[in-house]
Amino acid sequence: MDFVTSRLNDTPLDPFIKKIYLELPKPSLNDNTADVDRLIKGLKKNKKFAGVQLWNYDFDFISSTLRNSDFKVTSILADDHNIPKMLGVESGDTSGRNFGVGVDIGSTRLAFYFLDLTSGKLIEKRSVDNPQIPHGEDILTRIVYAREQEHKEQLRKELLDCCNNTVVEMCKDHNVDLNEIYSWSFAGNTTMTHFFLGLNSQNICKEPYIPVINRIPIMPVSRIGLKTNLDGLAYVFPNVGSYFGGDILAGILVTGMHRREEVSILVDVGTNAEVVIGNKDWLIGCAGAAGPALEGGVVQVGMMAKPGAIDKVRINRETLEPEYTVIGNEKPKGICGSGLIDLVAEMFEAGILDIQGKINTKLSHPRIKLIDDVPAYVVVPGKDSATGTDIAVTEVDIKILLKSKAAMFTILTIVARKVGLELKNIERFYVAGTFGNHIDPEKAITIGMLPDLPRDRYIPVGNTSGVGAAQILLCGKLIGEVEDICNKITYIELNVNAELMAEFRGALFIPHTHRELFPSVTAWM
Amino acid sequence: MDFVTSRLNDTPLDPFIKKIYLELPKPSLNDNTADVDRLIKGLKKNKKFAGVQLWNYDFDFISSTLRNSDFKVTSILADDHNIPKMLGVESGDTSGRNFGVGVDIGSTRLAFYFLDLTSGKLIEKRSVDNPQIPHGEDILTRIVYAREQEHKEQLRKELLDCCNNTVVEMCKDHNVDLNEIYSWSFAGNTTMTHFFLGLNSQNICKEPYIPVINRIPIMPVSRIGLKTNLDGLAYVFPNVGSYFGGDILAGILVTGMHRREEVSILVDVGTNAEVVIGNKDWLIGCAGAAGPALEGGVVQVGMMAKPGAIDKVRINRETLEPEYTVIGNEKPKGICGSGLIDLVAEMFEAGILDIQGKINTKLSHPRIKLIDDVPAYVVVPGKDSATGTDIAVTEVDIKILLKSKAAMFTILTIVARKVGLELKNIERFYVAGTFGNHIDPEKAITIGMLPDLPRDRYIPVGNTSGVGAAQILLCGKLIGEVEDICNKITYIELNVNAELMAEFRGALFIPHTHRELFPSVTAWM
Repeated sequence: MDFVTSRLNDTPLDPFIKKIYLELPKPSLNDNTADVDRLIKGLKKNKKFAGVQLWNYDFDFISSTLRNSDFKVTSILADDHNIPKMLGVESGDTSGRNFGVGVDIGSTRLAFYFLDLTSGKLIEKRSVDNPQIPHGEDILTRIVYAREQEHKEQLRKELLDCCNNTVVEMCKDHNVDLNEIYSWSFAGNTTMTHFFLGLNSQNICKEPYIPVINRIPIMPVSRIGLKTNLDGLAYVFPNVGSYFGGDILAGILVTGMHRREEVSILVDVGTNAEVVIGNKDWLIGCAGAAGPALEGGVVQVGMMAKPGAIDKVRINRETLEPEYTVIGNEKPKGICGSGLIDLVAEMFEAGILDIQGKINTKLSHPRIKLIDDVPAYVVVPGKDSATGTDIAVTEVDIKILLKSKAAMFTILTIVARKVGLELKNIERFYVAGTFGNHIDPEKAITIGMLPDLPRDRYIPVGNTSGVGAAQILLCGKLIGEVEDICNKITYIELNVNAELMAEFRGALFIPHTHRELFPSVTAWM
Repeated sequence: MDFVTSRLNDTPLDPFIKKIYLELPKPSLNDNTADVDRLIKGLKKNKKFAGVQLWNYDFDFISSTLRNSDFKVTSILADDHNIPKMLGVESGDTSGRNFGVGVDIGSTRLAFYFLDLTSGKLIEKRSVDNPQIPHGEDILTRIVYAREQEHKEQLRKELLDCCNNTVVEMCKDHNVDLNEIYSWSFAGNTTMTHFFLGLNSQNICKEPYIPVINRIPIMPVSRIGLKTNLDGLAYVFPNVGSYFGGDILAGILVTGMHRREEVSILVDVGTNAEVVIGNKDWLIGCAGAAGPALEGGVVQVGMMAKPGAIDKVRINRETLEPEYTVIGNEKPKGICGSGLIDLVAEMFEAGILDIQGKINTKLSHPRIKLIDDVPAYVVVPGKDSATGTDIAVTEVDIKILLKSKAAMFTILTIVARKVGLELKNIERFYVAGTFGNHIDPEKAITIGMLPDLPRDRYIPVGNTSGVGAAQILLCGKLIGEVEDICNKITYIELNVNAELMAEFRGALFIPHTHRELFPSVTAWM
């Protein structure tokens, strides 16, 4: 079982939205409580719901449901900051049917965690491409696109339709009625959250980088446009800032680093690298551009981690011939982030690359050649690739990758230093995101992207965002915990100053100018 | 100044909905709080709003309002059970413009209290006929009418349109924009409240007499259909039961009897007589049919207290000729409740009526004659009436009236006895409703309807329902006080038993079989 699935199983079952079956006393001359009041009174008998508030204005519907079902009804309740809210009522005992959907709104993919909230079981996890990709693979392009009011609305609608359609399909596959879904939870970065809620994203990307809203109140699903039970509620993870969103907060929640004595680090590398360091007493977060080289579109042969992408590479130290695996076992189309890290690490260890990232063109080998006068290493010759052209990495590509990895290492160093720690003192190192699932920490250490810690301190945590969203539905009290995290975290801006530039320049080498920082890598050198 | 106006002036000004002007710090790289969060943060600086909750999902609107007004905005806040709710925001300083409307939803008339909530002043009180009257003067007829779904909706819409239209007119007359009204408060009896909210009223009038809802949550005006500022809220007084509604609770609130050491009684006579007895420690309420004779439609010449109704009568002890006043100084059309009480009391004191309510036909007087073989007294001969026919009261009419007054006195006696008190120990006796405004307690005592207390203990309180509604808007904390009243009050059913029947029979006489109960009336006998 992977880390996140185990976290779902560890979550105590006390769902954000509960269903309570009640057999109410019938009205009589001696008990002339009004219908709606009778339901509320019945709920209040349970200590847990003593402070219950009526959160449904369709009084006639409640009344007729009570009367048509002989006052045996199931009440739908939300636990909002310890104030139970009565959202609706159903005839008879339907308390065994209570479903929810936790969603990771990733800029590339949306992941849906379909939960049975009676048993606490994950019914299915389904991933879908983000339908906004045609408007720009990177998020900045989409923000520019969203400048037009109608585009903003289009981006919103695409995400909403994606959510509704996916859930319709999942319901069909698992014999669940749409009306049996009462709760949603969404975690995404700040911009995706803005797109999803149809909010103006224009101020996110220009100084001083201000979102419309960070702390989003719990909302009726009807207000968002979700087509599940209209009495239901949606929770949207808060943001800390424009470059530090709900996805990372969900990550913190999932790792539990905010509950432990020891200091942990969580890194999530996507377009940006977000880093959190801290423990139960404090949390420091920061974000910086570190990832672009690891996604599609920057490195020439780079691509997203999807079918056709080379995700693992090994190079024979003698023959200098590569072995690789391709996602989906297809003909390779390009190389994804983890594949690039593997490749550069292996080229370095095989002696193809020097510590400055230069390819040793003196090695006479058919795979080492000049492409447009730039030295390159051919991973897949055109005859074996899906495109018919060579899949090769050039010195230019490697330079870009080294800049990314240097940025990553610099951010980690600076953040640790800010709290007076050295990286080697970090007890747990969580690597999140698609990156975290595919990356080989060994190789990332080899190129000097991640610090040279004992390997067992590295914990790949996969899609923490979706799991965090799912956890909220399983246990409503975690909403308060997310708020605590949000209140506790200090976001720091990494200003480009002399200290940072010196660190960065040192980190541009493989693994680093200061070899002593990477003893396990440089032992053979 | 009458009792209720003075009560309005005495209400501490701490409106249910407040407007707070804020000059927020502008965003910068050192303060990158999101727009909506910035507003909430600004509010939280004021201790009073430390726990403020965001109660508006139009985040983009809030954001753009902030930005378009240089972060100088007025926030609209509701005080709901001590949890401040941020309802909306306006550009610049509009805190001087905050209006509200308290409404008494009477079955006959609607009274609107238009309030300036900045100064606490009553701008205007306006009354309008209840537009439902064509569907039945009495409420039971309307309930029968409302059996059809579309009629129920029609009754709702008539009241809603009446509210919207009246407020549009008042706004025009006082240069107030509809959007400057953020709060409404409604008090009516249980059935009128059901009509107003479009709720099923069918179970109110059949055993075991169960309303759809008694404790109505605070509602967004948009949900009700009110056309004032859409961020606004409406408070609807709760009911205690089918025959004990929000109008009486408003009455208790206005009298303040629930805050005093001494025991008071509040009676409100309309179609029913509602009676509350109690003090700061306990409250007992009951209701019974006592009023019909005092409204139109039962006594042949009876009519509502409106223009054309005789409301005061004096009979010359020598000549037996009547003098009367007519509401609106028109030609008389009939006699309203207070006129009937006056008339019977005067007839009794002038010797026209004996203690059993029989007309002394031995008196040879042109005004005393037989109508359809029934002895009668002509108050207005046909030539002087608006209808061209005699306005006369017959023994049959008087019998009906005596039944009503006997019922009233019986209810009072029984209720007082239930709590171990005698009526003479009641310190304050509030007489509410239209009845309370017109009735002459002296005459009501003469016929034995009200107990023979020192006259200064009688306090006519007029339209407590509308004033109570207005008070809520002036001081939001009173919402909690109404809840306390609602929790404290014990509603008792007056079961028809031997004790009650004996009381009733004794009370059928003028003033009573037990003359000693009415020493000031029977002194001359």
